[in-house]
Amino acid sequence: MSESDYLGHLACGRCLGVVEESEYMYGCPACAALGRNVNVHPVYSLTDSSIRDASQPGIFEWRRVLPVPPTAKVVSLGEGRTPLLRLERTGARYGMSALYVKDETRNPTWSYKDRLAAVAITKALADGADTVVVATTGNHGASTAAYAAAAGLRCVALTVAAVPLTMKVLMQAYGAEVVALEHPRDRWSLMKEAVAEWGWVPISGFVDPPIGSNPFGIDGYKSIAYELFDELGDAPGTVIVPTAYGDALAGIYRGFTDLRELGLTTSVPKMVASEPLGPYAASLARADESPASTAPGSSVAFSIAGNIATYQGVAVLRASSGTAVVVDDDEEIMREQLAVAAREGLYLEAASVTALRAAERLARDGFVESDEVVVAIGSSTGLKDVGATASRLDEVPVIPPTLQALGQRTHRVS
Amino acid sequence: MSESDYLGHLACGRCLGVVEESEYMYGCPACAALGRNVNVHPVYSLTDSSIRDASQPGIFEWRRVLPVPPTAKVVSLGEGRTPLLRLERTGARYGMSALYVKDETRNPTWSYKDRLAAVAITKALADGADTVVVATTGNHGASTAAYAAAAGLRCVALTVAAVPLTMKVLMQAYGAEVVALEHPRDRWSLMKEAVAEWGWVPISGFVDPPIGSNPFGIDGYKSIAYELFDELGDAPGTVIVPTAYGDALAGIYRGFTDLRELGLTTSVPKMVASEPLGPYAASLARADESPASTAPGSSVAFSIAGNIATYQGVAVLRASSGTAVVVDDDEEIMREQLAVAAREGLYLEAASVTALRAAERLARDGFVESDEVVVAIGSSTGLKDVGATASRLDEVPVIPPTLQALGQRTHRVS
Repeated sequence: MSESDYLGHLACGRCLGVVEESEYMYGCPACAALGRNVNVHPVYSLTDSSIRDASQPGIFEWRRVLPVPPTAKVVSLGEGRTPLLRLERTGARYGMSALYVKDETRNPTWSYKDRLAAVAITKALADGADTVVVATTGNHGASTAAYAAAAGLRCVALTVAAVPLTMKVLMQAYGAEVVALEHPRDRWSLMKEAVAEWGWVPISGFVDPPIGSNPFGIDGYKSIAYELFDELGDAPGTVIVPTAYGDALAGIYRGFTDLRELGLTTSVPKMVASEPLGPYAASLARADESPASTAPGSSVAFSIAGNIATYQGVAVLRASSGTAVVVDDDEEIMREQLAVAAREGLYLEAASVTALRAAERLARDGFVESDEVVVAIGSSTGLKDVGATASRLDEVPVIPPTLQALGQRTHRVS
Repeated sequence: MSESDYLGHLACGRCLGVVEESEYMYGCPACAALGRNVNVHPVYSLTDSSIRDASQPGIFEWRRVLPVPPTAKVVSLGEGRTPLLRLERTGARYGMSALYVKDETRNPTWSYKDRLAAVAITKALADGADTVVVATTGNHGASTAAYAAAAGLRCVALTVAAVPLTMKVLMQAYGAEVVALEHPRDRWSLMKEAVAEWGWVPISGFVDPPIGSNPFGIDGYKSIAYELFDELGDAPGTVIVPTAYGDALAGIYRGFTDLRELGLTTSVPKMVASEPLGPYAASLARADESPASTAPGSSVAFSIAGNIATYQGVAVLRASSGTAVVVDDDEEIMREQLAVAAREGLYLEAASVTALRAAERLARDGFVESDEVVVAIGSSTGLKDVGATASRLDEVPVIPPTLQALGQRTHRVS
């Protein structure tokens, strides 16, 4: 059994006021005057630099700095410790000597959401939940369903009729009860009712406008910071995160500020959001601290095609001297998806590719130095939307079984 | 730079005769009299039990006992060190207390073939190859294409017109030149010509009838044995491998015999093949050592739906006192795919599920003890054939945004 430095209460990410655990899903009541709610976060007593416990599975090796009760049975599918791959050829093209991808496709449901689900489901199980609920069209739902299955909890997923087939299959295969609502925002209001009336535990957010996901789950992303520090020996200069509600941005940043508080690093990275529809870039252009929204739209990077920024995401970009990069050209994204796969052997989902496109722009614009260590979060695999790639590839030619035919087709004269 | 215990030559797996490296792709010439060729394997000088080198990436932590020249630049995408997941609920249903899945879906192209490709491509690059070639309809081609991309080598994939869409997309995305032949066996004869005439390096086999894949690549599977030993502290009692040409069977077994030879273990596991069409079971029923074939057929476990056994596979089953289990019922496989996903949070490809069905039969028949450590190789993810799962799932109902509708649909009265 591992001790935890989690103090068992939450604080507002803005005013730092203490919020009761029973209220965590509604954001900070004191900051509602901002015009929207503000997510809350677990509070720790960080005094001990030996935060790693190798006896615990998956990301619970960092259990001491995760919001998990000391006696809780952890729910792990062996998530985390994903490879940090150096992209030498792509970095050279972008004018960067130290570009890395954190290959989060190597998690149990092949996305970084597993870090969130592992902690959120562990907490829900420890709290005696019987049902968890998630409003989702994708990776978040697949991951929640898998961890609920592993925990023996019931999972209800509220989605939309146009949910991508692969995501629907994943959620249902993992045993979630999946229902669709006609209007996407109805998912949030219905979820709010189910949470209030039936005690279902929310793994995604449901406040409208959104504030972010389950705060305990968000702290699961801290493990990315700890792993990067462990692998690189220091904090990287910049971390680029494909961003919708800013959960990963917030969690990764919290991990680095933990390391700074413990005296293990002196610097924290600049945190950068890559996004197709631009609400974070619009937020940063504002004089005040309130998050912005942009016009709704669609993107091949569907898993981050949100048009509303969250306070937690904007606050991290500002606090870390980061920025937001809008990558809105579907063809540019898909060309780069194929180029990176063929150059590096790494097939990333479109949302992840936006982080690489952002890296190139940041290098070109001088936001990052040519020798700066830059990490792009490879959030999930291209396998989640094979159709988008398929439509951009050639048919496979059927050839007669002769060297001449093979040589012609493969540009080699026989 | 890590030293290697590889002696730089190959020996026949049957007569132990030395075979020149230039001849490796044609099997053992001396054993052709058996009626078919026999695969050859790298030979090592195993005298040192410190086989691990943590400074090397991915499975090259075992570089000293992999057939990689000491000066070679290794091609790694961070493969290996996949989680060993204990399936408590599924084990209980099967009457087993220690059933594990080695979750090979967590590799760079989400299949165990990455272990083969990492070593085979590293060797090809060290030998000065410019083009690698593979006859494939699936995971083998995807993995070869990805590693060739990472190595900067050209990859040609010879497939069939009915290649599954996801596999075609993966190979092309990773930059392989993919061509189809009308008759599957024409792939082998054409590949043989290209290897002989143009010096293309074969990563899969092309001898007809088949003998197995690139022998250097096969030794990449030894890393599964080393990892299992490292995680369990000893050799498991039984290892079940979804099997077509027996590459993984042969490689994993070689890894365990290495460990025995080094004095690290006294026992090796019983090796078991799970298969839909039954050529290994038919081979074991023979009085002589020659491998059998069965009638061609199809299976939802398409990645192992071969009807011809290889000598290397049969030899391992016999030498380890193992067996072969035929799992030929598509509906049984797909029911269990869904049951395991919903029970464990683990979504495996159909081929991998055959290994779990085999485990249950081995427990029922007393081949394994109830407390025996049994490891099933989870060879790849269900994401490789989402359509097969989708056809067995319900439509997602669209509901009005009311608690009553939600309660009815999720079997909870509001």
